[in-house]
Amino acid sequence: MLKNVRVVLVNTSHPGNIGGAARAMKNMGLTQLVLVDPERFPDPDAVSRASGADDVLTGARIVATLEEAIADCSLVLGTSARDRRIPWPVLDPRESADKVLDQLAQLPDAQVALVFGREDSGLTTDELQRCQYHVHIPSMPDFSSLNLAAAVQVLAYELRMQSLQREGAPTKMHKVETTAVFNEIPATAGELEQFYQHLEQVLVEIGFHDPQKPRQLMPRLRRLYGRVHLNRMEMNILRGILTETQKAVGVKAAGERRT
Amino acid sequence: MLKNVRVVLVNTSHPGNIGGAARAMKNMGLTQLVLVDPERFPDPDAVSRASGADDVLTGARIVATLEEAIADCSLVLGTSARDRRIPWPVLDPRESADKVLDQLAQLPDAQVALVFGREDSGLTTDELQRCQYHVHIPSMPDFSSLNLAAAVQVLAYELRMQSLQREGAPTKMHKVETTAVFNEIPATAGELEQFYQHLEQVLVEIGFHDPQKPRQLMPRLRRLYGRVHLNRMEMNILRGILTETQKAVGVKAAGERRT
Repeated sequence: MLKNVRVVLVNTSHPGNIGGAARAMKNMGLTQLVLVDPERFPDPDAVSRASGADDVLTGARIVATLEEAIADCSLVLGTSARDRRIPWPVLDPRESADKVLDQLAQLPDAQVALVFGREDSGLTTDELQRCQYHVHIPSMPDFSSLNLAAAVQVLAYELRMQSLQREGAPTKMHKVETTAVFNEIPATAGELEQFYQHLEQVLVEIGFHDPQKPRQLMPRLRRLYGRVHLNRMEMNILRGILTETQKAVGVKAAGERRT
Repeated sequence: MLKNVRVVLVNTSHPGNIGGAARAMKNMGLTQLVLVDPERFPDPDAVSRASGADDVLTGARIVATLEEAIADCSLVLGTSARDRRIPWPVLDPRESADKVLDQLAQLPDAQVALVFGREDSGLTTDELQRCQYHVHIPSMPDFSSLNLAAAVQVLAYELRMQSLQREGAPTKMHKVETTAVFNEIPATAGELEQFYQHLEQVLVEIGFHDPQKPRQLMPRLRRLYGRVHLNRMEMNILRGILTETQKAVGVKAAGERRT
């Protein structure tokens, strides 16, 4: 069940932490590791701290951007220790595991990403806005930053605990939400990203949005559409509306040039 | 509440793991560290991996035997990855935290110990027999041994989660904007209804929707926006987009009439 859950480490500085994360993953039954632009990898420190989870390291996929790492994922959770200006749906590790396992129970082929930021500065605001949910590990407010591998360990542990509990209690596995009744294919993070780009372009064309004075418009729209779990049909409708709007406004522009 | 819980590390080989354990403890609000016959301590590797939990390291008590480390404790839990010949009460990390917090709720002055063994071989049978309960972290049977600091992290995390829950304290940080009171006012059903009418009108004007051939478009959009629980600010953004679209398209229509 956890085979579709990937751990994404963004811009990791210390290869030892990559090894520690790989070990924590393998301990808990996770296998998919994706490294976004790691500073040093492969590296002997990673192998040493992996303590035998070499297969996870060897199988790690290295990509240049977070976008690439999550493009095919229908659920993306990002860890965040700090307060952000824009309110975002926040889950604790228990709720996160629940959310992930619900998704996989409904859609066994879905891909899910748990995203972890840099050792010193976490994920950027832009990266966090690509995540549908933020995960907060309930650490002490005055000493809140966990070691990277330790944070992976906590989330992986919760996933394993709850997947075991669900297997022991199969009646709990089919928790059906209204959105699942239609057995729909969820939009992927890549499709969502294309939608946001298209949306922003149209908002500029109709004169609603000025990228020079963004006023938090796009983050707010990302939060709105990020939490609704669009399915593919809905995505097609929204893209269709944007395209028709462009045609309507484009005709206008042509009309104006003619006058 | 957690001030009476001590972490006991027995015969640790790598000082880096002592530092990692100290950091994990401080992240989760534990402060009492007891080291039984550590191979190398103090050590710069411990300080480095502690990443600021120097107070936990400085306050660490060093003793020669496990017996000494737990002499004043009324509850002792020992971690164990492997099956032992002697049957013993075994708890998972969740149950362990529950057990510890029950004890402290009944006896606020009680001292409790969580005991962790050597990196390579864990606790001896003799040491395990000094523990009332054995804690088993539910790792994969074929790759079961967690890093020492990671094991401390998991147990400390469970203690913190459950102590927050018992106190009725939030287990996650709430991200709040200064304007959040306004932003988070949910849109009413009446406002939603006006939005749907406005949306339908615009979809007709841009040529995306034909009320004579509705093809389930509006029900689908109602289902999408109905389940996202729009707040008032988001509603205002969406209405603003519709109005601007109408202006852009209206200018077009006027332009076409002029040609």
